[in-house]
Amino acid sequence: MGGVLEGIKVLDLSRVFAGPASAQILGDLGADVVKIEDPSGDDARFMGIAKDRLVHVGGSSPSFHAFNRNKRSLVLDFHYDEARQALLKLAATADVLIHNFRPGVMEKWGVGPSHIAAINPRLIYAEFSAYGSVGPMSHIGANDSAVQAYSGLMNVTGETDRPPVRCGSAIVDLHGGLALSTAILAALLHRGKTGKGQRVEASLLLSAADLMSYQYADYWADGTVNQRMGTANNLSAPNQAFPTRDGSVIIIAPVDDMWQRCANALDAKELNILEFKSGFDRLRLREKLVAAICKVTRTMTTGDVLDRLGEARVNVANVNTIPEAADSEQLAAVQGTFEVTIGTHVQKVVGSPFRLADAPPKVRHPPPQIGQHTDAILSEAGFSAAEVERLRISGAFGRPGK
Amino acid sequence: MGGVLEGIKVLDLSRVFAGPASAQILGDLGADVVKIEDPSGDDARFMGIAKDRLVHVGGSSPSFHAFNRNKRSLVLDFHYDEARQALLKLAATADVLIHNFRPGVMEKWGVGPSHIAAINPRLIYAEFSAYGSVGPMSHIGANDSAVQAYSGLMNVTGETDRPPVRCGSAIVDLHGGLALSTAILAALLHRGKTGKGQRVEASLLLSAADLMSYQYADYWADGTVNQRMGTANNLSAPNQAFPTRDGSVIIIAPVDDMWQRCANALDAKELNILEFKSGFDRLRLREKLVAAICKVTRTMTTGDVLDRLGEARVNVANVNTIPEAADSEQLAAVQGTFEVTIGTHVQKVVGSPFRLADAPPKVRHPPPQIGQHTDAILSEAGFSAAEVERLRISGAFGRPGK
Repeated sequence: MGGVLEGIKVLDLSRVFAGPASAQILGDLGADVVKIEDPSGDDARFMGIAKDRLVHVGGSSPSFHAFNRNKRSLVLDFHYDEARQALLKLAATADVLIHNFRPGVMEKWGVGPSHIAAINPRLIYAEFSAYGSVGPMSHIGANDSAVQAYSGLMNVTGETDRPPVRCGSAIVDLHGGLALSTAILAALLHRGKTGKGQRVEASLLLSAADLMSYQYADYWADGTVNQRMGTANNLSAPNQAFPTRDGSVIIIAPVDDMWQRCANALDAKELNILEFKSGFDRLRLREKLVAAICKVTRTMTTGDVLDRLGEARVNVANVNTIPEAADSEQLAAVQGTFEVTIGTHVQKVVGSPFRLADAPPKVRHPPPQIGQHTDAILSEAGFSAAEVERLRISGAFGRPGK
Repeated sequence: MGGVLEGIKVLDLSRVFAGPASAQILGDLGADVVKIEDPSGDDARFMGIAKDRLVHVGGSSPSFHAFNRNKRSLVLDFHYDEARQALLKLAATADVLIHNFRPGVMEKWGVGPSHIAAINPRLIYAEFSAYGSVGPMSHIGANDSAVQAYSGLMNVTGETDRPPVRCGSAIVDLHGGLALSTAILAALLHRGKTGKGQRVEASLLLSAADLMSYQYADYWADGTVNQRMGTANNLSAPNQAFPTRDGSVIIIAPVDDMWQRCANALDAKELNILEFKSGFDRLRLREKLVAAICKVTRTMTTGDVLDRLGEARVNVANVNTIPEAADSEQLAAVQGTFEVTIGTHVQKVVGSPFRLADAPPKVRHPPPQIGQHTDAILSEAGFSAAEVERLRISGAFGRPGK
């Protein structure tokens, strides 16, 4: 059989990372995803890239290509009433609608949850926002970095005696997008039982709170406030980078038997001592422990530490650069990548973050050009040639020269 | 009606963060989650906490309480054949099994995917691992920090001219756990069509690759390698922290009309200039742009910048501490928290990272004590009193004094 979501129609009105990443997961699972773009296109097409680089990488940014496979593109400018009417018609036969317009915008346009539910009560209406649809911050815009800051994640990231830094990837966005996909799948299961769609929501705020949940719990338990600690953290020791003769290496031994194997594998008397044997004591004596391990690892190469500790089933890792990580034999071994072709540009991209043994995802569509499938999608949805022409004349597909 | 997953039985054999967080999402959605622990308990119960603090926070760590609501606990020591036989009997009537033992361990114990499929072909067998079940790294242990390092995420986190640091929360773990939940829901939808369960997988490696996907795409497109940039990033400018009279503030204006509103709201001639009008130019002239904005924000308070830019619908945020974030009015407004009671300890925790309007999650069970529901769960699963007693004598529930 085809994908898990074969036959499910998704209208994806979202822009930039979280919403498009969420819709892509549904597309990977086999859904028919229609990306609805403004005539100027998803902003992600032109973000983080120099203008002259665009022509060499397929006309849109690699970031756009990372999040928009398995979608077709339809152009609609919702500032025109005709476009909003067309959306209503499309929604009448769709299963899922995803958007990330600011709270209230879809309602103002007459395409809010209640408008759509009136014409298609089976539709799952999925909203992604910055801080949620209610509360004092609901009208404030945000992106990943803003909510890394707002959530306290930035405050705990960085060196102890230096200012906070950002986690170097858009993790709040991507975790939030995955949360929205999870909610949509749950709502599809719910619809299977009840016959009814519903409104589902995810947000940057809920995403970041989830990522920080165990640290908020520490604070709520008894006021314990974790601090930024460079490569280390509050959970266990050793659990950080250690210097080697030729670089550095991450060593983590959170539980006592793993620590014992670690001390044995590093073959150092000063580690194999009674006061380091319990995890409670290793946390308490962190400074002394770290100094003792540094003394040992400084005499070894990174490769030697990786070999010894890997063999001893101790958690150990190299601090890779992006090329080392992206081109790693391991990512290839787990078939972690796809290739998509945009015109003459062949782009390698990361695949889905999970595997289903009996329903493996595949690339059915490369990332689309802006509006590439406008006519085909409207025709499939029952728009007559005359209706499509009326839409074109109205400006709903964009105005020439604008 | 009850939750989306009412009637779904989950056996959760996983430890620490990713697996338990994944199972908790299923529990929040209404599944009956049985947490199966070793007699010494999930390691997370005693991780990141001083021994004398435990008694004040309910006997297990706040981290454990963050990830284990809506579960009941059964103790089984799989080193005993009797415990493995009991698992087979439990699996015969379960819908989902989650584990994060190292690749090969479950097979060695006779409870691998094929063993379980033989007795219950409808069961969804969900595996979480560090680097996946195949490939040269599959036998290497890892935790969140190790894969932050391995994936290149650590390399892009930190200040430009300083060493890499860890993103200050266990984001790879939690994103991977959510990916596993997504896969399980997809497999339940698939089972609804086909009647069959299947093996599903997620891993720290796939999680981190997903979080880094747009940066790997940059590299794969034409060799562009993003670097760590403190609070800034490669996607747009301005997009970082700026100094104010009394602290700092995050300002992000990725698209041109938002930048125009930003320049207007800060009311500074040196910002409202032609060469900053296009996003391509702002990226190219990043240093000049940042210097110009710093000059303006240094004259204002953080509160003033937040007010002006919030009003102008520019992405702006305060760099909050954990207490500020956890106790924010906004997280309360979106009902982002639950309370769970463990003995006499009332613990506030973060709720699910998404919302379903017609199936809101609720707390049915607080985080359990080790083995708290062993007898009840076995009895429900059809074990006779004599069988439970035999298990007890075998040592499968743990040996006194061990």
